[in-house]
Amino acid sequence: MHHTRLKDLVESVGGRLEGDPDILLSGIAPLESATASHITFLSNPKLRSQVKHTKAAALILTASDSASIAGDFPGARVITDAPYVYFAKAAQYFAEKARVPVAPGIHSDANVAATAKIARSAYIGPFVSVEEEAEIGENCIIEAGSFIGRGAKIGSNTHFHARVSLLALCQIGESCIVHSGAVIGADGFGFANEKGKWIKIPQTGRVVIGNDVEIGANTTIDRGAMADTVIEDGVKLDNQIQIGHNCHIGAHTAMAGCVGVAGSAKIGKYCTFGGAAMVLGHLTIVDNVHISSGSMVSRSILEPGQYTGFYPLAKNAEWEKSAVIVRNLASMREKIRELEKALKSIGHDKNEQP
Amino acid sequence: MHHTRLKDLVESVGGRLEGDPDILLSGIAPLESATASHITFLSNPKLRSQVKHTKAAALILTASDSASIAGDFPGARVITDAPYVYFAKAAQYFAEKARVPVAPGIHSDANVAATAKIARSAYIGPFVSVEEEAEIGENCIIEAGSFIGRGAKIGSNTHFHARVSLLALCQIGESCIVHSGAVIGADGFGFANEKGKWIKIPQTGRVVIGNDVEIGANTTIDRGAMADTVIEDGVKLDNQIQIGHNCHIGAHTAMAGCVGVAGSAKIGKYCTFGGAAMVLGHLTIVDNVHISSGSMVSRSILEPGQYTGFYPLAKNAEWEKSAVIVRNLASMREKIRELEKALKSIGHDKNEQP
Amino acid sequence: MHHTRLKDLVESVGGRLEGDPDILLSGIAPLESATASHITFLSNPKLRSQVKHTKAAALILTASDSASIAGDFPGARVITDAPYVYFAKAAQYFAEKARVPVAPGIHSDANVAATAKIARSAYIGPFVSVEEEAEIGENCIIEAGSFIGRGAKIGSNTHFHARVSLLALCQIGESCIVHSGAVIGADGFGFANEKGKWIKIPQTGRVVIGNDVEIGANTTIDRGAMADTVIEDGVKLDNQIQIGHNCHIGAHTAMAGCVGVAGSAKIGKYCTFGGAAMVLGHLTIVDNVHISSGSMVSRSILEPGQYTGFYPLAKNAEWEKSAVIVRNLASMREKIRELEKALKSIGHDKNEQP
Repeated sequence: MHHTRLKDLVESVGGRLEGDPDILLSGIAPLESATASHITFLSNPKLRSQVKHTKAAALILTASDSASIAGDFPGARVITDAPYVYFAKAAQYFAEKARVPVAPGIHSDANVAATAKIARSAYIGPFVSVEEEAEIGENCIIEAGSFIGRGAKIGSNTHFHARVSLLALCQIGESCIVHSGAVIGADGFGFANEKGKWIKIPQTGRVVIGNDVEIGANTTIDRGAMADTVIEDGVKLDNQIQIGHNCHIGAHTAMAGCVGVAGSAKIGKYCTFGGAAMVLGHLTIVDNVHISSGSMVSRSILEPGQYTGFYPLAKNAEWEKSAVIVRNLASMREKIRELEKALKSIGHDKNEQP
Repeated sequence: MHHTRLKDLVESVGGRLEGDPDILLSGIAPLESATASHITFLSNPKLRSQVKHTKAAALILTASDSASIAGDFPGARVITDAPYVYFAKAAQYFAEKARVPVAPGIHSDANVAATAKIARSAYIGPFVSVEEEAEIGENCIIEAGSFIGRGAKIGSNTHFHARVSLLALCQIGESCIVHSGAVIGADGFGFANEKGKWIKIPQTGRVVIGNDVEIGANTTIDRGAMADTVIEDGVKLDNQIQIGHNCHIGAHTAMAGCVGVAGSAKIGKYCTFGGAAMVLGHLTIVDNVHISSGSMVSRSILEPGQYTGFYPLAKNAEWEKSAVIVRNLASMREKIRELEKALKSIGHDKNEQP
Repeated sequence: MHHTRLKDLVESVGGRLEGDPDILLSGIAPLESATASHITFLSNPKLRSQVKHTKAAALILTASDSASIAGDFPGARVITDAPYVYFAKAAQYFAEKARVPVAPGIHSDANVAATAKIARSAYIGPFVSVEEEAEIGENCIIEAGSFIGRGAKIGSNTHFHARVSLLALCQIGESCIVHSGAVIGADGFGFANEKGKWIKIPQTGRVVIGNDVEIGANTTIDRGAMADTVIEDGVKLDNQIQIGHNCHIGAHTAMAGCVGVAGSAKIGKYCTFGGAAMVLGHLTIVDNVHISSGSMVSRSILEPGQYTGFYPLAKNAEWEKSAVIVRNLASMREKIRELEKALKSIGHDKNEQP
């Protein structure tokens, strides 16, 4: 177990320290599970009342929350504008201290083509294949069983977990993380139909991924048909996501698990997609659009905001009733029109009465 | 082809045998495809009329169905309260007889770290990586290309098919089955947002899986952020499922293919989820809840029962009509309110007439 | 860069050549990005006006479009009835010219069982496992890290990308393409329930796949419970698709990414499924049915046509209103009935007035 003085954490991550700078910390934990060797954080003002029960040695919080809780917390405080961001950075600080170092070098059970270029400081694990003319940058970690195709390029400090595929000619930038089972650069789904049979359209574009991108387990990103599929800097993709060929995903957009994006969709920057949201192909979504989980985007979205479209859950018996009516809404509308007409005619009759 | 005497099957699986105990059986098959060397089963009373056409040598059924079919079936009978359960157990019996045995030992093309502990009776296939301090129990079968991370633990009698990932420090119990391509213990999807950019929250929890759990092909279960993701005993997960970080899934809950569960969802015991059902994060589902396929669970469910929420399928032209109305239901409701008002005012007028 | 004379392309792919047969072509590109060494195509008459701006040396189009654009394009023309199909075939022609040849043979880092049969012209990459009695046909390419189970069979000219699993006894035909991470033949999801616990039903059927089938990255196709799961000739499956046990998918049916098909569904020929469409188990879909993206097929479809069922997307605030009403449609219907009754009674009263 590594221990850090509070002052060293604050020196590294920032914030204003109030209290004993020499407290020894083993890590960071939520209010309710923190022990006496932890620093904790108050990011949600609703949890203020829990502060008096935490056993943590130190607390990250805003100046205003610090004033509110007054003497409820006897330990040290770190004052910051954004406690949740501070929590993330402090957690990174502790994780880095606890990290098991990986020795550079090519494992004797790896298979590296003669023309591949591997940086000296990179680690290539057992059963990794690196094909001709592939390039792997400084400090990369390529774990067991991964596949780096012919001419593919990986920027420095990028980490591939076990069993990742990066196919021929595709490239990914610096400081990316790709989780186990992800497949980058499989063929896009492109066919011409000739009298019922599908004629394959060769997928000759690449996948081009920026820096600081994270790609989840078993996520797939298809190569372009002729042009490239592009994922800009800072994009975060969760697990089991499918990105179709020739998509363009703007910087810092994040997608939760099971999202699907059909081919040639152009998605802006700073967007978020809830789990299992789906996007049809050949449409445009501007910056700062937020799609709720389980929602189908079937046309372009040209105005920022939150969009939703899923059928509300109900007890099965109630759903069965509502679903039947949904299927017959056109007849319900017709009835309403008839009622309006009938009422109008009665009104007229009434008015015409002497 | 292995053959079993009926009496040996009944001795192993149970039930009351009526008829010739020495019939030789090669396996179990449905009523319509069984041949003279098969035992078959009647689990659905609606299929009683098919009994007279089956060629099977023996029949598993309830006492009541046995009385109903009277002389329609000339072969041997096995009487049981639960013929479908009996079918499953008999099928296991025959599958076990037909199983190609796996010789214990570590394949010469595996890569096993010096500090890993592998039980003598376990099989480790080619191109399997077992990292430092991992532990693999008695009679485990770890097939080709699987990855067992640092400090991960696998209980006895557990079977990993080819190309499974179990990441560092995660653990799985006894008698589990994990299918090809599954990824257990990838990072959960956790970020803090700092002025539009995503700051990664290290995922330092584990995945902890009980006994008798089955995990489908290409299913992903993320490790916890700080605490663990927990899958209790007897849970059955089909293919392509995504379980987010810090979820807790109660014992004997089953999920069909393509289900997604967002982070920190707490799901009870004995629940079932139809294919592609989705569960939002940070909510609670009590025991014995059944979610229909394609339904989105967007709030906690605190009462057992069946819940559904998907848009009913229709011919496209009809759907287009109903979808337009669904988007404008608020205006339909408004029209109805106006009609009600108008009618009321007419009623008043009418009553006021002399 | 390979260059081809236009006449050689036309000789191989067909069509009527108008103009200089000796133009040298490096490849095919869309109207707007084609350069002077490209052939391009006009498959959508709406794009006719772009023809005058393209820099391409040659143009594929219909006779009627050729007449329409008159002198707008000065280069060579290839006249065909189906320019998009011609584009696909021409792209294949160029891709084949540019293909990096794969030398036949078994890589020294592969693991091939003694009883496996590998055609001389096949390529088996590093870290591929081929188990006992498996068969791999002529000109097959089996890339790094793939797993071919005991007794599995692969027809000639089939290409497995890196890290594919084909499990024991399953078979796939000729000229198929299977993308990275696909799993063919994992156990179907079959259990009997005994007092809350799930008893596994051994999955002893196979997956049997025809010729000219393409299977996307991380797609999973489960083996049958007792009978087989069948995928007929020419089926095209995109990424992240789940096909349950004992499904039967008819020839030339295509499914886009993230589709899920539950067990024992019988799907006809020439069907198409949009992304994330879901099909419940034990139902029948006839030939020439087209399911829109995000739609749930919850009952058999016995009539060809296009079917749809997803909740229309709206701004979140609007969706919240419509979703509340959808949940209470039964009460809305009740109000309409009351209005109809009230109106009728007023009508009667009115008629009864002297």
